[in-house]
Amino acid sequence: MKITMAHGSGGRSTSELIGSIFGKYFSNPVLDKMEDASVVEGSGRIAITTDSFVVTPLFFPGGNIGRLSVCGTVNDLLMSGAVPKYITFGVILEEGCDTEDLEKIVASAAETAKEAGVIVVAGDTKVVEGNGGMYINTTGVGFVPEGMDVSASNCQAGDVILVSGHLGDHHAAILSTRMEISNSIESDNAPLREMVDAMKAAGVRLHAMRDVTRGGLGTVLHEFAQSSKACMEIREKDLPVSPEVKGFCGLLGLDPLYMGNEGKMLAVVPAEDAETALSCMKNSRYGENAGIIGEVSHEKDGSVLCHTPIGGVRIVSELIGEGLPRIC
Amino acid sequence: MKITMAHGSGGRSTSELIGSIFGKYFSNPVLDKMEDASVVEGSGRIAITTDSFVVTPLFFPGGNIGRLSVCGTVNDLLMSGAVPKYITFGVILEEGCDTEDLEKIVASAAETAKEAGVIVVAGDTKVVEGNGGMYINTTGVGFVPEGMDVSASNCQAGDVILVSGHLGDHHAAILSTRMEISNSIESDNAPLREMVDAMKAAGVRLHAMRDVTRGGLGTVLHEFAQSSKACMEIREKDLPVSPEVKGFCGLLGLDPLYMGNEGKMLAVVPAEDAETALSCMKNSRYGENAGIIGEVSHEKDGSVLCHTPIGGVRIVSELIGEGLPRIC
Repeated sequence: MKITMAHGSGGRSTSELIGSIFGKYFSNPVLDKMEDASVVEGSGRIAITTDSFVVTPLFFPGGNIGRLSVCGTVNDLLMSGAVPKYITFGVILEEGCDTEDLEKIVASAAETAKEAGVIVVAGDTKVVEGNGGMYINTTGVGFVPEGMDVSASNCQAGDVILVSGHLGDHHAAILSTRMEISNSIESDNAPLREMVDAMKAAGVRLHAMRDVTRGGLGTVLHEFAQSSKACMEIREKDLPVSPEVKGFCGLLGLDPLYMGNEGKMLAVVPAEDAETALSCMKNSRYGENAGIIGEVSHEKDGSVLCHTPIGGVRIVSELIGEGLPRIC
Repeated sequence: MKITMAHGSGGRSTSELIGSIFGKYFSNPVLDKMEDASVVEGSGRIAITTDSFVVTPLFFPGGNIGRLSVCGTVNDLLMSGAVPKYITFGVILEEGCDTEDLEKIVASAAETAKEAGVIVVAGDTKVVEGNGGMYINTTGVGFVPEGMDVSASNCQAGDVILVSGHLGDHHAAILSTRMEISNSIESDNAPLREMVDAMKAAGVRLHAMRDVTRGGLGTVLHEFAQSSKACMEIREKDLPVSPEVKGFCGLLGLDPLYMGNEGKMLAVVPAEDAETALSCMKNSRYGENAGIIGEVSHEKDGSVLCHTPIGGVRIVSELIGEGLPRIC
């Protein structure tokens, strides 16, 4: 069935659409009450984040806009040190959107929410003119444990920098699809709950965390260097990049340091906690290619330095120009 | 300046747009930290609601999509009995959107948030292909006071039904604009914080509250009747409708009972609290035309009855067919 303007008019078609697709997959005691605002258990400190997703195409190798929309918001909550609890799901459908596609996307979002340990507590559906596209907004609420203080400004000289896996996968997958290049590259879109929970449970002192999204690792390192007034030193040879993405980047002249992921994170921890953090990452889902990539110093505060395999040092500049649009 | 895809690519143009427009109007100590997730004070019970706004045109008599997007979400929080605290603001801009219009819309949203007593704690901006349009998602978080229990299922026989003002204004304003009918009708888009706070402060026992939006008063009364397994009896002569909207409806054969508002509410309270509730509404901003319109009974459970001026009684049927699309 194709979506028509009637599905967005608030009448019977809207109710039927909500019941048959959203209700079916997102069902839980809170959402099922169908109140205009859901009342849920709170916490002394809460984290809030919002993100809209406009990726094209809606389906890409390794994922889709539904899975992506849950991962993006859950990961933002996790990186603040919060325990993700609730998520809202607002969908804007363009006329002509296929309800079979919508159902696949909603089913995938529901599965990802379950994996990430969040429940959908509120939703909204609107329909607009267009060509069958779809936009999703997810807003997340998490509980921040007592004493948790993770911040981009907490990186300290001597701290160790870890990354949880291969760089550039999501960006390369989207770009390959758009350019109709056939390869085996898949998006890494994934919720990072398991690895963050594991590090917390192991007592790793998490100074700073950030998921590597639009702008890539280089952009995150710059933000950390500037917020912490420290120097982020990384080793080029230790940057994890899959052979497929390395080849793809070589071909197109792209630098994996600036390419977006949707299921990778950077963690900055005290040196004595680094091995524990690494083993937590490696033993978690999506973390098998995690690695230690460098250290924090005061070599050149506010900057990112990269040690090359032949013994040189180059300054990693801020992202110049524009990234790829509609990647997330 | 016109919005281009570069404004959504995550690079410098995006930062400049965010700084020069969103940062300028939404600035507060939480948002200014520019974290991916904001950590804020919480509460034992919280209310969460989400809504996307796709109204056309973006500017209409009496308001715009920015003001509307804050009112809609704040009012949903208020109706659950929560004290609105935080709001998120996710914008999807179509290429060609005018930044002067965007600035007016953001300024209006910021002013409305201030009036409603909420702060913007998270935001997001994306750009898509299109014709200069705009979509806004707002998600609201409020604190639910101890003992507060407002629900559509709490209406009790003997309770009195109040409505806070003229019906149908928003719907009639949007429709007039689209049909290029020149009249003095303005949208009522407004945050209802002042009147709800006043009723709470006066100790009014609020059994049920609901803002009258898409579907109109008739739809809200039906939901109350069915959730509470009671009968909602209203008097036609007491329904507040402005002469302009009454004339407009007569001309087009519309029934104000099913027309959407964006700044009106229904309250169901015990009979002994009705006069207090009415005076709270009338003395609050946007409540000068409030009135008592009927009572809850067990005359015909699950139904809505309307007493006509000539002494008859008609059953108010559920909304048949579809409402007006893209009204909110």
